[in-house]
Amino acid sequence: MSHTYQYPRPALAVDCVVFGVDDEALKVLLIQRAGVAAHGQWALPGGFVHLDETLDEAAARELREESGLSRVFLEQLYTFGQVDRDPRERVVSVAYFALVRMSDHQAKAATDAADARWARVRDIQTPSSGTDPPMLLQLAFDHGEILDTARQRLRNKVRYQPLGFELLPEKFTLRQLQHLYEVVLERPLDKRNFRRKILGMNLLEELAETEQGVAHRAARLYRFDHDRYERLSREGLNFEV
Amino acid sequence: MSHTYQYPRPALAVDCVVFGVDDEALKVLLIQRAGVAAHGQWALPGGFVHLDETLDEAAARELREESGLSRVFLEQLYTFGQVDRDPRERVVSVAYFALVRMSDHQAKAATDAADARWARVRDIQTPSSGTDPPMLLQLAFDHGEILDTARQRLRNKVRYQPLGFELLPEKFTLRQLQHLYEVVLERPLDKRNFRRKILGMNLLEELAETEQGVAHRAARLYRFDHDRYERLSREGLNFEV
Repeated sequence: MSHTYQYPRPALAVDCVVFGVDDEALKVLLIQRAGVAAHGQWALPGGFVHLDETLDEAAARELREESGLSRVFLEQLYTFGQVDRDPRERVVSVAYFALVRMSDHQAKAATDAADARWARVRDIQTPSSGTDPPMLLQLAFDHGEILDTARQRLRNKVRYQPLGFELLPEKFTLRQLQHLYEVVLERPLDKRNFRRKILGMNLLEELAETEQGVAHRAARLYRFDHDRYERLSREGLNFEV
Repeated sequence: MSHTYQYPRPALAVDCVVFGVDDEALKVLLIQRAGVAAHGQWALPGGFVHLDETLDEAAARELREESGLSRVFLEQLYTFGQVDRDPRERVVSVAYFALVRMSDHQAKAATDAADARWARVRDIQTPSSGTDPPMLLQLAFDHGEILDTARQRLRNKVRYQPLGFELLPEKFTLRQLQHLYEVVLERPLDKRNFRRKILGMNLLEELAETEQGVAHRAARLYRFDHDRYERLSREGLNFEV
């Protein structure tokens, strides 16, 4: 079957930047391409938009089909439309991004992908890697640029909105929370500044409990004040850590 | 001539939300549609993306072709992809937005549009207008929703970045600056709070001059500190007025 139009049309795709956090580093979900174009290369999960689905639906479907991930809150990031971004033909891609706890999402190659895995963001070649980088992983197409855009958006978001509490256990220490911010922002933070700012948001509820079974001095446990968390997530605030 | 593809493709369009400020109100540039679809209806300037141009180029071209506006800094806003947003067929639209000084940009219907004009944003029906609005202007397609999205983005931006100094004369009073913010945010601001916050940004240079030829007591003139302005525009800051 073929489809004919009066004027030429770009192909329309979606691509997903799913960041994962664990105790170690900021990671991103990659798939190894099985199709003809960029065969064998690592890339962001994505594919073409169907006529009967919204862009959001296309992104969720492609993510599921290629990597097995579902129940991910994908947010629209930016639409990439450089004329030569795909060597085959003109393809415009609507990029999405999300931030999840890696342990909740096993990456496994599903249909349309040869392999799927979490890769450390800092091991990937992007426009911000600089001119003389060590051996870094090359992504297909302009996916390095899409990754950089998502990383920048994530950093901007974190300045104004608290990080998702679904990334931490229900009760956590300030050390754990700081470490989460350090992983997401990909840089160390000053402990005193961090504590002053995070406590200044009145976002945390201090519990009577301390952590259990640790070798070092047991630290105070906190949890998020859900009402205030909802309000800050919605309205934003200045939180430059 | 016709163009044939193996799989069906959505049409890809761009639409431009160009906000204009003058002394009176926040306005938006509209064109009256000359084509077959939504003929005679008011809409945002826009049209289909050509294969040999980027999305940014398509937006600038359509804006120029339909309304005569050029030299406008258009920023990508969001991509709208509801399945039924255009009654003709599946059309996905990449929306752009800009904020300009109205007096710098005469709107005139160019090719592809029957008419072009600046309309007050508050006179237009949008999802945020509420359920029992007075007689408001209906836009074609989902352009009311696109307008609301742009308005919300503009408000968010203003919280973190200073308003463009190209919207004011080089030297201005704090009253003029506050009025500009009130127009853009579509609400009155408290004078003392506004002055405290804007002066706290160290963004303004206080001049030795005062305004000339006014009936009321002549107010102090200010201008933007360009270096600091550049830095804040780039990096953002918390500026909730």
